[in-house]
Amino acid sequence: MSETDSPMPHLGAELERVRANTPLVHNITNFVAMQTVANVQLAIGASPAMAHALEEASELAALASALTVNIGTLETAWVTAMAEAATTANSLGTPWVFDPVAVGASRFRQTAARRLVAIGPTVIRGNASEIIALHAAVCRRPLTAGDQRGRGVDATAATGQAVDAARQLAHTTGAVVAVTGAHDLVCSHDRIATVANGDALMPRVTALGCALTGVVGAFLGAGAAAFDGTLAALAYYGLAGERAATRAQGPGSFAVAFLDELTAIDGPRLDRHARIETQVPEA
Amino acid sequence: MSETDSPMPHLGAELERVRANTPLVHNITNFVAMQTVANVQLAIGASPAMAHALEEASELAALASALTVNIGTLETAWVTAMAEAATTANSLGTPWVFDPVAVGASRFRQTAARRLVAIGPTVIRGNASEIIALHAAVCRRPLTAGDQRGRGVDATAATGQAVDAARQLAHTTGAVVAVTGAHDLVCSHDRIATVANGDALMPRVTALGCALTGVVGAFLGAGAAAFDGTLAALAYYGLAGERAATRAQGPGSFAVAFLDELTAIDGPRLDRHARIETQVPEA
Amino acid sequence: MSETDSPMPHLGAELERVRANTPLVHNITNFVAMQTVANVQLAIGASPAMAHALEEASELAALASALTVNIGTLETAWVTAMAEAATTANSLGTPWVFDPVAVGASRFRQTAARRLVAIGPTVIRGNASEIIALHAAVCRRPLTAGDQRGRGVDATAATGQAVDAARQLAHTTGAVVAVTGAHDLVCSHDRIATVANGDALMPRVTALGCALTGVVGAFLGAGAAAFDGTLAALAYYGLAGERAATRAQGPGSFAVAFLDELTAIDGPRLDRHARIETQVPEA
Repeated sequence: MSETDSPMPHLGAELERVRANTPLVHNITNFVAMQTVANVQLAIGASPAMAHALEEASELAALASALTVNIGTLETAWVTAMAEAATTANSLGTPWVFDPVAVGASRFRQTAARRLVAIGPTVIRGNASEIIALHAAVCRRPLTAGDQRGRGVDATAATGQAVDAARQLAHTTGAVVAVTGAHDLVCSHDRIATVANGDALMPRVTALGCALTGVVGAFLGAGAAAFDGTLAALAYYGLAGERAATRAQGPGSFAVAFLDELTAIDGPRLDRHARIETQVPEA
Repeated sequence: MSETDSPMPHLGAELERVRANTPLVHNITNFVAMQTVANVQLAIGASPAMAHALEEASELAALASALTVNIGTLETAWVTAMAEAATTANSLGTPWVFDPVAVGASRFRQTAARRLVAIGPTVIRGNASEIIALHAAVCRRPLTAGDQRGRGVDATAATGQAVDAARQLAHTTGAVVAVTGAHDLVCSHDRIATVANGDALMPRVTALGCALTGVVGAFLGAGAAAFDGTLAALAYYGLAGERAATRAQGPGSFAVAFLDELTAIDGPRLDRHARIETQVPEA
Repeated sequence: MSETDSPMPHLGAELERVRANTPLVHNITNFVAMQTVANVQLAIGASPAMAHALEEASELAALASALTVNIGTLETAWVTAMAEAATTANSLGTPWVFDPVAVGASRFRQTAARRLVAIGPTVIRGNASEIIALHAAVCRRPLTAGDQRGRGVDATAATGQAVDAARQLAHTTGAVVAVTGAHDLVCSHDRIATVANGDALMPRVTALGCALTGVVGAFLGAGAAAFDGTLAALAYYGLAGERAATRAQGPGSFAVAFLDELTAIDGPRLDRHARIETQVPEA
């Protein structure tokens, strides 16, 4: 890959659009993350709704401007509701984001992930271990001893190790694939970009990855295109982490400052401080 | 409606009673709000217990001094347990508070809400959109295009738009009905009052509405009458929000300061700063 | 009991071992506590994973270095998954910690607790009311009017009242039993120790007891022996509470500072400030 002078997307404008539109985002997410996803979406100016029962999942998805689906703390009944909500979203042209939490940890999650990816998410976001494991699950490629498939929720691989898996996943599924970590990678079938914003305290607070999925959902729900919206969401989120870290004394005060910074950052500030590189994929 | 010189309830005394009695409050509430409801109840001096399984819902309700029932993140099995707990509460004379979260968003929630309201809650608390939608569901009145029934959890209507719905709901059900928002309204079949305390940051933190339902439950569990206890809970909660806002830099630090202020406010301070108007309903 | 000069365990070394090993801890815990358990485990340097479905509970338990099982917000399906995960843990020699939340509150929890204790936890941790009620449930001893079996989650008994129940439970089950409160007690079939670290704000924040169970799990997962690891975890946790209290203005800011302090305390500091007394049980 080589760097290019392809125009930067207007990140700040995407952020301002979230605040102007207050998109309703329907989240079917895990028990650990629900509160954080909701607080992060409120902090950025979106309106979260959590509903996972089959009896109403489709109705909620139809009301919403975007859907997010996250397989942490999964149950069988939830997978059915997720599939129905995602199908509804696709039928209405509503964007939806898939978060394959700890997909490497069990066959149950791998089976669910295969089913959900087959429906066709707009964006897939995970850490490097999750994207490697998801790629293996979707492409039914056996993991080798060298693969860092992840033991649990936390990444044991670096973003760079997941580049091939992410690109192949993007090609196979048509989704934009985001690998987040110390550095983030966003790729589609024909575009690649990296985001350098972020802070080492972010993985010390639970559910910040899940909540980032919620932020991507909010950006898409406000009208952003999949690739540019994902890129804007990642840069914005990482920038909030950087700023929060300057006034944090540990993970507790970091989490508090992070919500404040998500609210405080505006479009011009995001444009000034985003550290994005767009690249041309090699043939 | 015209303002009257009807005596103010002794708000501060109701707050002190919570702290003196440490009421055990049984909450069947949603996944997003559980932690916040518990932390708010602990901060005010009550003792929260969460239990939603049919196998123990009735037993818990019988142990508790008050029950709260909230239909966010609803599942069918939960509705049965809620109904059983509420029936137990009524049979023992234990007050219970109903929170119709996002009842406008799905038929599933409307059906559940009708069933629960039919059991006879002591207090119903919701935002304006929820009270409008609940009134329509309970009275089987079709919503018109002009109604702001709410898309999700967040209110899209102002309190003033819900006055008629709230009053009719109070008449129909016999419950005290509280509409909370920028201004709050409390009404029973023969009383009306408004509460002006509060801050614009409150709806930027998830579950603060749900937790307010938990506070109303705690006040009733400590022995307050339904109307006066609800009024005291709302003024106290709004006052904590006002004070927290003075030292907040955003929704993260606001949420932290809010819990601190709930603990710090005492009875005399509540009496000094409550902004309540009692009114006589017109015939 | 009389105090002895038996050597203190190397508490600080146990803490440093958590940070060196980043143990993966599988937690099947309640909805109120999940986020806090995860944030506390991340703050101390462990890696949390939450998974409760029968479809994957055993697989996760097999991946993990320790398992914790907590019966708050219990459902029948969860008990089966807990039993399977615990059985898997035992078969692999993986330590597991049992937390009998509010076991005094319902027959449902007592039946579940008996089933889980029969599998053989490595450590049992509860407040005084819970340990008294668990002892009664496990030994099928009827509670008398004088017993403080606990109304809900919060302890209504002091640690001192639970000494006999804890010792008998340790003898009957072979587990290390920890009673936590204003003072903590740790006992095995042949050892007893007390921990004086802690602060009165700790019970004002929900799930800090549940999260302590998670910390014990992390210490055991990093390789500590059951008794010494539990003692180290309790002293460390209490010390973080003491330090957090010095910069807190109430339960909100306390909870934030507590996470910061869990990260900040290192081995030498723990060794300097732990307030532990080891005792020889009388015959």
